[in-house]
Amino acid sequence: MNQSLQALSKASEKFSKLSLSHGKRARLWRLLYGHGPRNGSLLVLPLDQGLEHGPTDFFPNPPAIDPEYQFRLAVEGNFSAIALGVGLAEKYMADYAGRIPLILKLNGKTNIPSDAHATSPLFASVEDAVRLGADAVGYTMYVGSPRQHDEFRQFEKVRQDCERYGMPLVVWSYPRGEAIEAKGGKNSLFAQDYAARVAVELGADIVKLHEPNDNRTNAPAPYDKLDEDASARSQRVVRSAGRTMVLFSGGEKNDDDAAVLRKVEFYMDSGAQGVMFGRNMWLRPLDQAVALVKEVHKIMAKHPR
Amino acid sequence: MNQSLQALSKASEKFSKLSLSHGKRARLWRLLYGHGPRNGSLLVLPLDQGLEHGPTDFFPNPPAIDPEYQFRLAVEGNFSAIALGVGLAEKYMADYAGRIPLILKLNGKTNIPSDAHATSPLFASVEDAVRLGADAVGYTMYVGSPRQHDEFRQFEKVRQDCERYGMPLVVWSYPRGEAIEAKGGKNSLFAQDYAARVAVELGADIVKLHEPNDNRTNAPAPYDKLDEDASARSQRVVRSAGRTMVLFSGGEKNDDDAAVLRKVEFYMDSGAQGVMFGRNMWLRPLDQAVALVKEVHKIMAKHPR
Amino acid sequence: MNQSLQALSKASEKFSKLSLSHGKRARLWRLLYGHGPRNGSLLVLPLDQGLEHGPTDFFPNPPAIDPEYQFRLAVEGNFSAIALGVGLAEKYMADYAGRIPLILKLNGKTNIPSDAHATSPLFASVEDAVRLGADAVGYTMYVGSPRQHDEFRQFEKVRQDCERYGMPLVVWSYPRGEAIEAKGGKNSLFAQDYAARVAVELGADIVKLHEPNDNRTNAPAPYDKLDEDASARSQRVVRSAGRTMVLFSGGEKNDDDAAVLRKVEFYMDSGAQGVMFGRNMWLRPLDQAVALVKEVHKIMAKHPR
Amino acid sequence: MNQSLQALSKASEKFSKLSLSHGKRARLWRLLYGHGPRNGSLLVLPLDQGLEHGPTDFFPNPPAIDPEYQFRLAVEGNFSAIALGVGLAEKYMADYAGRIPLILKLNGKTNIPSDAHATSPLFASVEDAVRLGADAVGYTMYVGSPRQHDEFRQFEKVRQDCERYGMPLVVWSYPRGEAIEAKGGKNSLFAQDYAARVAVELGADIVKLHEPNDNRTNAPAPYDKLDEDASARSQRVVRSAGRTMVLFSGGEKNDDDAAVLRKVEFYMDSGAQGVMFGRNMWLRPLDQAVALVKEVHKIMAKHPR
Amino acid sequence: MNQSLQALSKASEKFSKLSLSHGKRARLWRLLYGHGPRNGSLLVLPLDQGLEHGPTDFFPNPPAIDPEYQFRLAVEGNFSAIALGVGLAEKYMADYAGRIPLILKLNGKTNIPSDAHATSPLFASVEDAVRLGADAVGYTMYVGSPRQHDEFRQFEKVRQDCERYGMPLVVWSYPRGEAIEAKGGKNSLFAQDYAARVAVELGADIVKLHEPNDNRTNAPAPYDKLDEDASARSQRVVRSAGRTMVLFSGGEKNDDDAAVLRKVEFYMDSGAQGVMFGRNMWLRPLDQAVALVKEVHKIMAKHPR
Repeated sequence: MNQSLQALSKASEKFSKLSLSHGKRARLWRLLYGHGPRNGSLLVLPLDQGLEHGPTDFFPNPPAIDPEYQFRLAVEGNFSAIALGVGLAEKYMADYAGRIPLILKLNGKTNIPSDAHATSPLFASVEDAVRLGADAVGYTMYVGSPRQHDEFRQFEKVRQDCERYGMPLVVWSYPRGEAIEAKGGKNSLFAQDYAARVAVELGADIVKLHEPNDNRTNAPAPYDKLDEDASARSQRVVRSAGRTMVLFSGGEKNDDDAAVLRKVEFYMDSGAQGVMFGRNMWLRPLDQAVALVKEVHKIMAKHPR
Repeated sequence: MNQSLQALSKASEKFSKLSLSHGKRARLWRLLYGHGPRNGSLLVLPLDQGLEHGPTDFFPNPPAIDPEYQFRLAVEGNFSAIALGVGLAEKYMADYAGRIPLILKLNGKTNIPSDAHATSPLFASVEDAVRLGADAVGYTMYVGSPRQHDEFRQFEKVRQDCERYGMPLVVWSYPRGEAIEAKGGKNSLFAQDYAARVAVELGADIVKLHEPNDNRTNAPAPYDKLDEDASARSQRVVRSAGRTMVLFSGGEKNDDDAAVLRKVEFYMDSGAQGVMFGRNMWLRPLDQAVALVKEVHKIMAKHPR
Repeated sequence: MNQSLQALSKASEKFSKLSLSHGKRARLWRLLYGHGPRNGSLLVLPLDQGLEHGPTDFFPNPPAIDPEYQFRLAVEGNFSAIALGVGLAEKYMADYAGRIPLILKLNGKTNIPSDAHATSPLFASVEDAVRLGADAVGYTMYVGSPRQHDEFRQFEKVRQDCERYGMPLVVWSYPRGEAIEAKGGKNSLFAQDYAARVAVELGADIVKLHEPNDNRTNAPAPYDKLDEDASARSQRVVRSAGRTMVLFSGGEKNDDDAAVLRKVEFYMDSGAQGVMFGRNMWLRPLDQAVALVKEVHKIMAKHPR
Repeated sequence: MNQSLQALSKASEKFSKLSLSHGKRARLWRLLYGHGPRNGSLLVLPLDQGLEHGPTDFFPNPPAIDPEYQFRLAVEGNFSAIALGVGLAEKYMADYAGRIPLILKLNGKTNIPSDAHATSPLFASVEDAVRLGADAVGYTMYVGSPRQHDEFRQFEKVRQDCERYGMPLVVWSYPRGEAIEAKGGKNSLFAQDYAARVAVELGADIVKLHEPNDNRTNAPAPYDKLDEDASARSQRVVRSAGRTMVLFSGGEKNDDDAAVLRKVEFYMDSGAQGVMFGRNMWLRPLDQAVALVKEVHKIMAKHPR
Repeated sequence: MNQSLQALSKASEKFSKLSLSHGKRARLWRLLYGHGPRNGSLLVLPLDQGLEHGPTDFFPNPPAIDPEYQFRLAVEGNFSAIALGVGLAEKYMADYAGRIPLILKLNGKTNIPSDAHATSPLFASVEDAVRLGADAVGYTMYVGSPRQHDEFRQFEKVRQDCERYGMPLVVWSYPRGEAIEAKGGKNSLFAQDYAARVAVELGADIVKLHEPNDNRTNAPAPYDKLDEDASARSQRVVRSAGRTMVLFSGGEKNDDDAAVLRKVEFYMDSGAQGVMFGRNMWLRPLDQAVALVKEVHKIMAKHPR
């Protein structure tokens, strides 16, 4: 542990600059150095797709419908944390408590109604996270939605409760809604770059972003003229997030293991703190997923933070 | 009772895996082993139709307009619980208190205004349930409604109060609203499967669902291509609900007793924890209803949980 | 008083079956046996028309614009209670306090904006009623309005406060809004029958209803085919209200005294607990009104409850 | 002061009939007998036009843009009170505290957005009024607006806080919104008469009204046929306000001093408690305004209340 | 410091007239005399553009994306304060705490959705400001927006908390929304003049305004005929703000240093308390920006307040 503390003080530039309360520091330490790669980088397994997308997301790998599957994978794959909602935490975590840090997702929605005025209602609280022994909370913010004022307003109390309880705050900063669609879509560089900045301005400790694509159609100036390659784009959003640590999303499943690993390497090269890979992990059979995550760990080891 | 406790620890796979607070455990035990079939299965008599559908639901059996009727049936038919709102509980339960567990429905609405943006407002609280000696609360959630954010938000406090008071939480997880209608309707497999998952993600202990039908028109992929028989469909939604216990709804009255019993058997074969039959019970004359429920008990006895 | 208590235990079937808190019992006793007919029946003088309809309602009898008029009539006519809002109670009740029970109306609105999405905002609380020495509170609920969720939600706290303070709860259960209009109108049997049931489901102690008319055009099945006479219709809604006591509304002024008295008799024959007559009382000159109410008392005396 | 107390007990019929808490009585006494005409009548100087109409209202008399001007006028003109918002009170009242009673306006809005669904949000509280040593609070209520439910709901707490702190409550009862426009406009007899009644029903101690005009076009029956002269119209709304004291508004500036004085006399003859004249006072040069108000005092002296 | 105190009592006419609580006085003193020009004038560096406009605002000077840059500039340029949100304050201020006063912006939004119904949600509180050692809070109010009632309502608590904690309150008083556009636009004299008055009416200590332009098209009377030069226009809005101190905004970057300095001089000549220049400062390379701000200080020195 002395070694880890030493690593801590040396490795993470962002971490060392942050003025954190004792509780946040302790919990972030567990995520960055107590579990997963243990070198300041992060490898998070999310399981909120059943709520956000419905059970269809589990169809390619039927056992994945049982959250036990993801808990096993999170432990056997030595993830930094598993991220899920209060229902799954209460009903499935008992056997794994202490063995895998929990990021409790506090809000969410189904994808059934239109996303034009998307909003993500709270259905759990930071106090729930404390009660469940979580090491962070997750909050989805629909940046640019016509209802973003609801997103911002309910965020205030979450952030303040995080401060009060010493709970790190992970923001799923998601451009969404009709105005975003009209300006080039949710994964455009314009949208992701703005979402990164919103996260640091509002007080996220960690932000989950998507890799910005190269679509410039309808993007507001000067993004419409900004011809950057993938690497420059990803580095740009990491830079815009400032001292808020960036996790890139794995997105939809890719059957090509090598491509998944290249993506991880690419994200880490971009300066991200880590990755949040769900479907690319738990839609593989358990042994294959565990084998793949071992390869991921080798990449993470090369990118201490 | 020793026997029952033994049954408890052996029988219910779901129950034994749950990490329940003392209060929830005690109350769930009364529902699963203290009343009704007493083998872990559940047989619930609902009486919220007067509010949800209006007095018309009682027309086929006029005495049923008097809630006394349902209380008598619940006791004489040895149901696991009766589910109704605070007005009926306060005005009719006094003579039956202690003889039949109460599931207090906390929210509801009439069916007079349009369901396009359906929402179900709270009109009672978990504290009301505690005061009235209830063994669980019921909450209707309109999954997929354009106002589902209101449903989710108000659910948060209900769930937290359930945790605080040790009150089991039964969710009527009902797909509803214009987006559901546009995607194949409220009883499609897509809709029921999603509703089952939402229930476990948000923290329901028990979920009431409807048997999914075979309509695939307008269903989102891959449900539009998913050609499963009735049994597979029902098993699928039970599976999607995970460790949340499933009750299937009896729906509209069927005059054919044998058909009703076949339906009960079918639901239990699908892995459900039990059934919630209202109109198929209390729209029969009392003696016929009691006779029918005895046959139901025979089926339940074959399906310990 | 012994006699009255004896009357109490014998007379009111509904009252004796109710499981009431001490406070509710004491206050209801004052309404049913301490004032007015004193036989369990109720004769209530409402004065919320100035808010709900505007000063025009007083034009036929100009002195009635002064609330003094109604207070004098309530006392001299030996009514069970006067029902009005907090402004009138605070400014006019001082000289009559203790001489006439008060039902404090807690919400209301003007009829100036459209009723298509009718809602009735609270402008007083149960604590106001306690402070003013009221013996009950009144709450208007617009059943079937597209905003009925607001009506239900704000009702929750009112009902809970009534429970906490032992305050009987009188619900003006009024079908209203565009969906009601589309289904046959606010005074149809469909609408009044549903409104009666909503009152008992949500927890009203007393419900004010209107006599259902015989309009079946646009009524939902099976009401569209339900050909019942006036007596059967009124009995039906009384039955649908269950153990919630029913008051029928007097409605607009009828200059024919005999017709008014026949209406009272008709309502009491229908099983109502009593009547709430405003304009048919206070739009008559005081001496005529007092004379008429004496005749009403003779009818009430024949209908102990 | 003995004399004043004697005047108090004799003069104001309304005041003597009111059952007021000690605090309200003390503060109302200061307004009615401690300042201004000191005979139970009221002469109030309002200064909320800068918010409600914008700085344009001050253009005819540029010095009036500086609130100092109105404070000087209020003191030198011996007004009963000055009515303004929390910002002006905090920044300008220090030198005048104790010399002129304050009516703190609690809500308000600009006239920039459409008035079709007018609503007047609170931006100060009764506790602010207590802190600032106010002798009353002012509340604008948009009667008949499609958002009148918001107006009523937020009024509840204001009224209750007034009761708690013994603070008199002055209501600017203003018909407003698209439904009012469709029914003859905000200054019609229909609208002002209704507004007067709403004020007393909801619990105003004092109500500010506008002189009803003679427009009957589009007015609801029976106002469309009600052919009354100006005097009868004004007396009618005073009567409809009951024991709530009426202040008539001075409205837009009239350069003819004699006409202003005739208007004051007319209002007092109608039975009003007093007048609230802003622009007709502070849009005159200070010496002219002080001279005019002296003439007003002569009229008020003839109308003790 | 004696000298400063003496300056304080002599210099600032507005300051000396204000009746300030001890806390507000102490904090305002730090802004007016403890930092920056130290003569009662104010030179504020804002950094909320990343949230309000997105990262594009930093494109002309890439290092400015790192908030370190602005903190360095604020300290080296001897600004009166830096104004930014809670996320940037928490993550970047540690090394600068005590060296540069903080104005914590409490609300904000992105510019992605339409501004037609603009509203600026709170995402931090006055208590956050206290915790972070801020010397003032900032609040954006969209004057004239169809949702201005939301702006006013949430402002109430902010203002009250400022009073409670002795925290000066800076209002970004911004005309915005479809009605403003229809009446000549957000920077018209009509709009800025009204915004200035709203700020003082609602209780701002300091207001940030934009220089009013000369557009009179569509302006409401009498602004449509008001032909004033730039100097008269700016003096007018300063006058309308009364004892609320005015800061003029620097707006978009101007590469011509001399023009920037002329603008500062112009604003100070108009009677403003100071200026808030962001992009015109931090879009210059650090050495150039520091050089420019030195010239600004020379101007400020000529305008003690």
